[in-house]
Amino acid sequence: MTQRQERLEVRTPGRGLHEVTGQVGAIVARSGVTTGLCVVFCPHTSSSLLLQENADPSARADLLAWLGRLAPDGDGRYEHDAEGEDDMAAHLRSAVTRSSETIPVSGGRLALGTWQGIFLAEHRTSPHRRTLVVHVFGE
Amino acid sequence: MTQRQERLEVRTPGRGLHEVTGQVGAIVARSGVTTGLCVVFCPHTSSSLLLQENADPSARADLLAWLGRLAPDGDGRYEHDAEGEDDMAAHLRSAVTRSSETIPVSGGRLALGTWQGIFLAEHRTSPHRRTLVVHVFGE
Amino acid sequence: MTQRQERLEVRTPGRGLHEVTGQVGAIVARSGVTTGLCVVFCPHTSSSLLLQENADPSARADLLAWLGRLAPDGDGRYEHDAEGEDDMAAHLRSAVTRSSETIPVSGGRLALGTWQGIFLAEHRTSPHRRTLVVHVFGE
Repeated sequence: MTQRQERLEVRTPGRGLHEVTGQVGAIVARSGVTTGLCVVFCPHTSSSLLLQENADPSARADLLAWLGRLAPDGDGRYEHDAEGEDDMAAHLRSAVTRSSETIPVSGGRLALGTWQGIFLAEHRTSPHRRTLVVHVFGE
Repeated sequence: MTQRQERLEVRTPGRGLHEVTGQVGAIVARSGVTTGLCVVFCPHTSSSLLLQENADPSARADLLAWLGRLAPDGDGRYEHDAEGEDDMAAHLRSAVTRSSETIPVSGGRLALGTWQGIFLAEHRTSPHRRTLVVHVFGE
Repeated sequence: MTQRQERLEVRTPGRGLHEVTGQVGAIVARSGVTTGLCVVFCPHTSSSLLLQENADPSARADLLAWLGRLAPDGDGRYEHDAEGEDDMAAHLRSAVTRSSETIPVSGGRLALGTWQGIFLAEHRTSPHRRTLVVHVFGE
């Protein structure tokens, strides 16, 4: 059994879903693991992870718009707004998406579905520098 | 440390919560692991995973009805509807439930709560053939 | 590769977010793992896990209030109410937060963000005794 842990820097241009499937897959390749697991972890509370369809951009646009209706920016009922109108909305959207995902590795590759991608969901409106922690282990 | 990875085929009759606790437990038993972890992964973006109460069917019925109000079928604001009225709603319901779950193995069994079951949540209305990837490792 | 599994008892005074970062970190320290993974698992379906901001209490208050609007207590449309008005609401809030989280261990510590804490989210209104399963493995 072997393991490899790397940090992945992602510069987000602001709110949106940013695909990182290729970069995570490259870490799996560098690990030399053929059968095992790959953990992706988001150490932020105003951005998060999502495994979503990566074929049709309209699915991502609909998802973002829906999250916007579910947890709107600048809702007058929020108390926490130190960093602006998108501050609390970003925490709420993170709370109902994911902080960690564990994806099996099979045949040296991520066992994702055909149209399934790994996305960093940036919930803040301004550009951010985000770091993901990727940990691969297995044989 | 040992590991075992298996694929689990699930035929869903359409929208609903389909319990897979028994099949996942059988893979844990075949792995021979007594202390370790069991990862269940859903490589689909219109079905997902949920650990929920498996005693009272009314809890599952309420959960499905609530997801239906949260992310309704055929909302006119969706752009993505290539596969029908339930297409985008299925992606949204997947986004706020789970793609992966990691359950400890203790004494050779899944360390689930007394009334806690593992469910594949089918969010599409028509029958589907789904595959879950189950990965067990430990000692 | 080594592993350690412990159960963590948490007495919740009722609905709220209860930070367990320190107790989970202590288990990581006892495991002796310097590089690896830490899984936190919640074997309950009316309480759940969340990694959230632990600096400003107003963010947690807003999160609880928002979950209350998303899945209200005593909604007349719920069928499942055997344990009271907060019963079904608790299952729904659990369904859209987390049952398991996998956090990388780096340099012998949880690789959490600076203001990121691990919380047990109690969704029932009355005090409960909850158990989390914490599993650490690595080198």
